[in-house]
Amino acid sequence: MKYKIGLVGCGTVGKGFLEILEKKREYFKEKLDFEVKLVAINDKLKGSLLIPEGIEVKKILLLLEQGKKIDEYLEGKSNEARQMDPLEMIEKCEADIIAELTYTDIKTAEPATSYIKKALQTGKHVVTSNKGPAALYYRELKKLAQEKNLFFRIEGTVMSGTPVFSLFDNGMAGNNIKEIKGILNGTTNFILSKMETENMDYEDALGLAQKLGYAEADPTADVEGYDALAKIVILSNVFLEGNIKPSDAKREGITSLSKQDILTAKKEGYRYKLIASTKKENEQIRASVSPQKLPLSNPLAGVMDANNALTFNLDLLGKVTIQGPGAGKTETGYSILTDMLTIHRHLAK
Amino acid sequence: MKYKIGLVGCGTVGKGFLEILEKKREYFKEKLDFEVKLVAINDKLKGSLLIPEGIEVKKILLLLEQGKKIDEYLEGKSNEARQMDPLEMIEKCEADIIAELTYTDIKTAEPATSYIKKALQTGKHVVTSNKGPAALYYRELKKLAQEKNLFFRIEGTVMSGTPVFSLFDNGMAGNNIKEIKGILNGTTNFILSKMETENMDYEDALGLAQKLGYAEADPTADVEGYDALAKIVILSNVFLEGNIKPSDAKREGITSLSKQDILTAKKEGYRYKLIASTKKENEQIRASVSPQKLPLSNPLAGVMDANNALTFNLDLLGKVTIQGPGAGKTETGYSILTDMLTIHRHLAK
Repeated sequence: MKYKIGLVGCGTVGKGFLEILEKKREYFKEKLDFEVKLVAINDKLKGSLLIPEGIEVKKILLLLEQGKKIDEYLEGKSNEARQMDPLEMIEKCEADIIAELTYTDIKTAEPATSYIKKALQTGKHVVTSNKGPAALYYRELKKLAQEKNLFFRIEGTVMSGTPVFSLFDNGMAGNNIKEIKGILNGTTNFILSKMETENMDYEDALGLAQKLGYAEADPTADVEGYDALAKIVILSNVFLEGNIKPSDAKREGITSLSKQDILTAKKEGYRYKLIASTKKENEQIRASVSPQKLPLSNPLAGVMDANNALTFNLDLLGKVTIQGPGAGKTETGYSILTDMLTIHRHLAK
Repeated sequence: MKYKIGLVGCGTVGKGFLEILEKKREYFKEKLDFEVKLVAINDKLKGSLLIPEGIEVKKILLLLEQGKKIDEYLEGKSNEARQMDPLEMIEKCEADIIAELTYTDIKTAEPATSYIKKALQTGKHVVTSNKGPAALYYRELKKLAQEKNLFFRIEGTVMSGTPVFSLFDNGMAGNNIKEIKGILNGTTNFILSKMETENMDYEDALGLAQKLGYAEADPTADVEGYDALAKIVILSNVFLEGNIKPSDAKREGITSLSKQDILTAKKEGYRYKLIASTKKENEQIRASVSPQKLPLSNPLAGVMDANNALTFNLDLLGKVTIQGPGAGKTETGYSILTDMLTIHRHLAK
């Protein structure tokens, strides 16, 4: 089956996704009966295109590679889409699926939420790795999608392309979730790993994370636990049928931890991790992010460097832990693909 | 949707499965639109029943609990099914799905393979946790199922109910598998864990495993690596499109390891694990089971006691590891349920 798709936002994740599409086009067609026709791209900085006949992915990747504007695809021909508002483009394009890939604003979840609503309202499935809308408006967006018999898929919002939502839906269905506990922020896990195993000070470890591209110039969202908080809120609302906001959960980052704390824990056979957890007690969601001292026998204790992991504590299966990448261009690009493949599996019946 | 099911074999796994069905009947109906009518049970030792109108799961569980024969369900009424051959019962019963739950014979895969063939030939989906047919005849059985437009699902053959096959199919589709590596035998992992962390001798650790029910009186299949071998053969044939037999893979158990080996490795920052691995090289499957010294940073190194884990090394996602139970009544019982839910998700469209 062939799907018309539109990208709103074409930064790192969009590029990662398009690279996968291009690299594995034949494989997807032959093995998965999955084909894509790219009909729209809208990016604030890189320009926009709306071509119902289809946009050549290879040519777009070349322009991005060369740091050129996407508009140059048309080679001087007029481009009515150049100044088009994203909302207008979402409405006008005849995509089956919109990939919402703009930046995360965790305070307002805008403009992403408006884009997603517009797509759903105009009959398009939505896939996104944007944590904002998922953390603040999951219930509302999911309901809107269901009313329209559309998919709203968010695999990439937690642990990038590592399966979390599809893992539970397909491999754990029928279980009751007693608790979810995870390491959901790669930057802080990298810093804690370096502080322990290489005896680095916090500032040096943070500096190294920044140098390697794991941490932003302003690392607040990571080190103060806001990023992990958004993710545990998403997991609470998706898996525990909660309806909480980030402000409903406790949050403590890693900045209060000293190297001494970490080394003392190590001597005692423990390891500090920034743990995000959630469970339901008396119909109340209890979600939190905080540094915790884990015994080394805990599967989460062995998760080092920038990796992420999540433990589901289930009534039938007991504890099942998945560990994998939590970020990255190809890894998050894959999350967009996997959501589209999920939609494909449902529609292709 | 309501499915008529038949059980061939009703030992520990069958009981675990029926307990889950009974305990969560309402939940499955309401949340998953999944209902079951048990129409046949055939067990060599415990007796057989064939009741098209449906068998009360609760009453069967009570009989099993009391150590009684399943025949007593009929309370003295004549039971034409008592002496019925399993093959005849599989053919005669009008089940939609047959759960094949007889004992594993890894040398012949019989009589399970004949039961599975009969079920498929008479138009019934098959789910099984039996490693024999999956290790020796996967390709043939899968082909037979496909020709008949039926499902042949084997989630429980590797890592009991912990998702492995459904994890890849739904959460990793589109990836090329570079290598699969895992700890697939809980007994040997338990023994190695005890030898290292509690300084036990091999014989004492094995004795404890036997006492706790992890190891058989004759532990050969576990400690010599035959069990892990069967599982890596299954993974090779399912995921790498191989067509290998256990004799095509290298096998070495843990009996050649001394406590000294393990403690020396520990001092050097390594840990011995019985590792099953497989990859494709020049269109050839290279599968093996052998004790390997892993650095502690390897996610498999942190898998302790009777737990199992599997690492997929993927071209797009990199390394993703799932860790969970590898055995157990409820855990393997759940594998039967999860396979039925997979079939349900496909048929309910």
